[in-house]
Amino acid sequence: MIVAGPCAVESREQVMTTARAVADAGAVMLRGGAFKPRTSPKSFQGMGHAGLELLAEAGAATGLPVVTEVMDPREVEAVASVAAMLQIGSRNMQNFPLLREVGRTRKPVLLKRGASATIDELLHAADYILQGGNELVVLCERGVRSFDTATRYLLDLAAVAVLRERTELPVVVDPSHGTGKAAYVPAMARAAAAAGADGVIIEVHPNPEAALSDGPQALRPHEFAQLVADLRRIVPLVGRRVLRSPGAQPASNPNHATEVIAP
Amino acid sequence: MIVAGPCAVESREQVMTTARAVADAGAVMLRGGAFKPRTSPKSFQGMGHAGLELLAEAGAATGLPVVTEVMDPREVEAVASVAAMLQIGSRNMQNFPLLREVGRTRKPVLLKRGASATIDELLHAADYILQGGNELVVLCERGVRSFDTATRYLLDLAAVAVLRERTELPVVVDPSHGTGKAAYVPAMARAAAAAGADGVIIEVHPNPEAALSDGPQALRPHEFAQLVADLRRIVPLVGRRVLRSPGAQPASNPNHATEVIAP
Amino acid sequence: MIVAGPCAVESREQVMTTARAVADAGAVMLRGGAFKPRTSPKSFQGMGHAGLELLAEAGAATGLPVVTEVMDPREVEAVASVAAMLQIGSRNMQNFPLLREVGRTRKPVLLKRGASATIDELLHAADYILQGGNELVVLCERGVRSFDTATRYLLDLAAVAVLRERTELPVVVDPSHGTGKAAYVPAMARAAAAAGADGVIIEVHPNPEAALSDGPQALRPHEFAQLVADLRRIVPLVGRRVLRSPGAQPASNPNHATEVIAP
Amino acid sequence: MIVAGPCAVESREQVMTTARAVADAGAVMLRGGAFKPRTSPKSFQGMGHAGLELLAEAGAATGLPVVTEVMDPREVEAVASVAAMLQIGSRNMQNFPLLREVGRTRKPVLLKRGASATIDELLHAADYILQGGNELVVLCERGVRSFDTATRYLLDLAAVAVLRERTELPVVVDPSHGTGKAAYVPAMARAAAAAGADGVIIEVHPNPEAALSDGPQALRPHEFAQLVADLRRIVPLVGRRVLRSPGAQPASNPNHATEVIAP
Repeated sequence: MIVAGPCAVESREQVMTTARAVADAGAVMLRGGAFKPRTSPKSFQGMGHAGLELLAEAGAATGLPVVTEVMDPREVEAVASVAAMLQIGSRNMQNFPLLREVGRTRKPVLLKRGASATIDELLHAADYILQGGNELVVLCERGVRSFDTATRYLLDLAAVAVLRERTELPVVVDPSHGTGKAAYVPAMARAAAAAGADGVIIEVHPNPEAALSDGPQALRPHEFAQLVADLRRIVPLVGRRVLRSPGAQPASNPNHATEVIAP
Repeated sequence: MIVAGPCAVESREQVMTTARAVADAGAVMLRGGAFKPRTSPKSFQGMGHAGLELLAEAGAATGLPVVTEVMDPREVEAVASVAAMLQIGSRNMQNFPLLREVGRTRKPVLLKRGASATIDELLHAADYILQGGNELVVLCERGVRSFDTATRYLLDLAAVAVLRERTELPVVVDPSHGTGKAAYVPAMARAAAAAGADGVIIEVHPNPEAALSDGPQALRPHEFAQLVADLRRIVPLVGRRVLRSPGAQPASNPNHATEVIAP
Repeated sequence: MIVAGPCAVESREQVMTTARAVADAGAVMLRGGAFKPRTSPKSFQGMGHAGLELLAEAGAATGLPVVTEVMDPREVEAVASVAAMLQIGSRNMQNFPLLREVGRTRKPVLLKRGASATIDELLHAADYILQGGNELVVLCERGVRSFDTATRYLLDLAAVAVLRERTELPVVVDPSHGTGKAAYVPAMARAAAAAGADGVIIEVHPNPEAALSDGPQALRPHEFAQLVADLRRIVPLVGRRVLRSPGAQPASNPNHATEVIAP
Repeated sequence: MIVAGPCAVESREQVMTTARAVADAGAVMLRGGAFKPRTSPKSFQGMGHAGLELLAEAGAATGLPVVTEVMDPREVEAVASVAAMLQIGSRNMQNFPLLREVGRTRKPVLLKRGASATIDELLHAADYILQGGNELVVLCERGVRSFDTATRYLLDLAAVAVLRERTELPVVVDPSHGTGKAAYVPAMARAAAAAGADGVIIEVHPNPEAALSDGPQALRPHEFAQLVADLRRIVPLVGRRVLRSPGAQPASNPNHATEVIAP
């Protein structure tokens, strides 16, 4: 399961270009942020509802279901009306009112591990969603805080193996946030696949230098296409298969994200 | 500024007993959780609105203004109707919709540092509140994640010195969560005072063994009274003074928490 | 380059059995500790010089060159007389007199990253060896300290990508110490290969439950053989090849460890 | 017990000036490095044996016993001939051959905690010295690795309380390395005293801007004198007393360092 797209939705042209590129390269879902949790209130905060509309348009044009972040329990309904999958960002992994709210929907939830959350805490956070009756939770390793500034976070790939042992929920890896540097993303995506992850989430931008957020960690479309080719060779070796882009198959079910995880 | 009280409001008797004990010992504010952010959904989640009412009653009976946590942007108004000060817990330090919402009130906000937040990130989180026009932000160091399990978190007292250099906002320290063990709380509270903190927040419980949350880190009332006596001797040495309990002076202003920080 | 063997040399039978098993499965070097750095002085400290002799015997019997740890600058000569490669353990990464001493030999040195060393510090530590004129340094990622007790250390596979960018020195990964649990070792070894590592170091023990040190992280011989088979399928996908066991080719050169890294 | 002096011995003038200044201000021991463990082999490595001689001269001139680091088991005898107390640096906390070697002397040993060592590991490292029959071990908290670059290390003052509970060995704190910034040193030294530490180790340099190592964390002599005055007011409050400078009393016993710790 390869999810790709820009960090943030910035304009119709940017999201359409990226969506087409990642669909062509073999992504099965489009990611993109409309509501962006930014460390400083002075940073670009995302396009909000206008961004959601552009994501919906790009998803429809490419046949890719959309995954996007929801930060506010009062926005869950609005985001769920557009997204096939709701993302809970790492800063909100223990935002319990928000977890309860997405637990009331029947949309798949991509739950990112907090930057200093233990694996146990990640599983307990998932329990808040599951307790609401929503069983479609996908866990995401995206790097934890460490002392070395060589990478933005420390990607904990052993978490894939640990989670495999402790839960049947699918596990995906985000090497873009996990390393913070595009040059390291392909190696870590390959490693995630070899470790047995169910998917990867890759930030792709047609022009990373001009990105409004997290440009340094975005792959260019041709780099992403090369990575997909590499993953297609590794994944079968660990007894799995890469899902085909829904461009090649009717994307009739907006909730089909969890179906595309192929054991 | 000495804030004290139970981790969670558990019953009328428990909160009244504790409130009277901490008021007698010299606390100037009463802390207590009605809405509790708990790692697991199966743990006690707090008494909610009923807990708020008990806190209001205990505050009125002792003359202590109340500080209590708000976790949900939809509950800010309800909590603000009872509390003199709104607490943002460490898990919500980067819950930006919540920060914006408390920024719209004119209640002082106690902003706890996230368990893996840098000092820069704490200051940026405060900016979200300040940007809403609410300038009454008190920063709280409460320990960060580390590798040693000898204490629950690693209390970063140097953060007091760093924040003193970077901001004029008051800085308080929570040695109860910061160490997780009652035996270490007095030493760390004294150290916080000697480092120049504007206050400490201490968990006190009449019967820690029976506490519904975080019992192992709660002082008994007589231990707390001894600590207050120790702090009264240290604080003047760093050019400050300890505030008198409002029981001795009319507590006419429910917002007076920020006034009680005495440089 | 697959290095394998027991954590510690415990007896002739144990080291011979293990050496034969790992040689049969395809290892190209035999690892094993004669001098063991143990946290407590009351733990088994290794067999010392007697252990070195058993390693030499096992290496000769199987044709596998031997890598073993040296902890004391006064023992470098003795260890170098037996070992094809000298290991500097993570606790000694910044033991500068020891680094200088192995820098004076012309034996390859396996330099393990300290448990809280940055990648920069690892490269500077290598400089101490290189400065002595010994250019045969192999860097080893073996996990860093983190807050989550789900694994013993946090294996930093992104270090492979970072080091690839910063140095031409070969980089190997030790998933046995890096995870501390046998169940996670195969997934992390595969991930290391997919990330582009030049080799892996795997602890193997014929009877892990009876091991005198680090039993929980040791693979059994048949598990190791399965892992070698998996690695043989992954490694070619990242443009590399797995070295053949020297049992199949004359092991004439005791220093050939660095030659076996095949780009 | 206040220990002070330069990070490294740089010249006769520098060490004599500093020694006189710290003696006048009330230090009871002189610290200074002759053998310096430096991250890079290209950094200043200390004056070595010539530095030891200058330390001996400065100690004799001021009546201050000397504490200095030993890094190499082959140098223990030479360092012990000059030093009243042997320092094991944080990088060598688990250099077991070195610990055994200082355990064979009858000199007090200042054992610094490793930058990612748990408190348990520190106590086990002390066991290596104690096992040799040397019971004069002083434990030193000097900061651990963390994710925030606001300070060089994260000073773990709760370790003072934890160690007090687990051992009778004296515990001192090094806020100079623990924060890496002179501006934060006085607050953290006061906090260490209030937490109940048996002593502090403070880097002092007559001209920090010109220091060959760690200048940014060195106090100037007048700042150090002010700090000593502050500590003299805090220490009695926790039931202890500050030792007088040996300038005022005959320094007849070169081993008297451990005697000066006053409960």
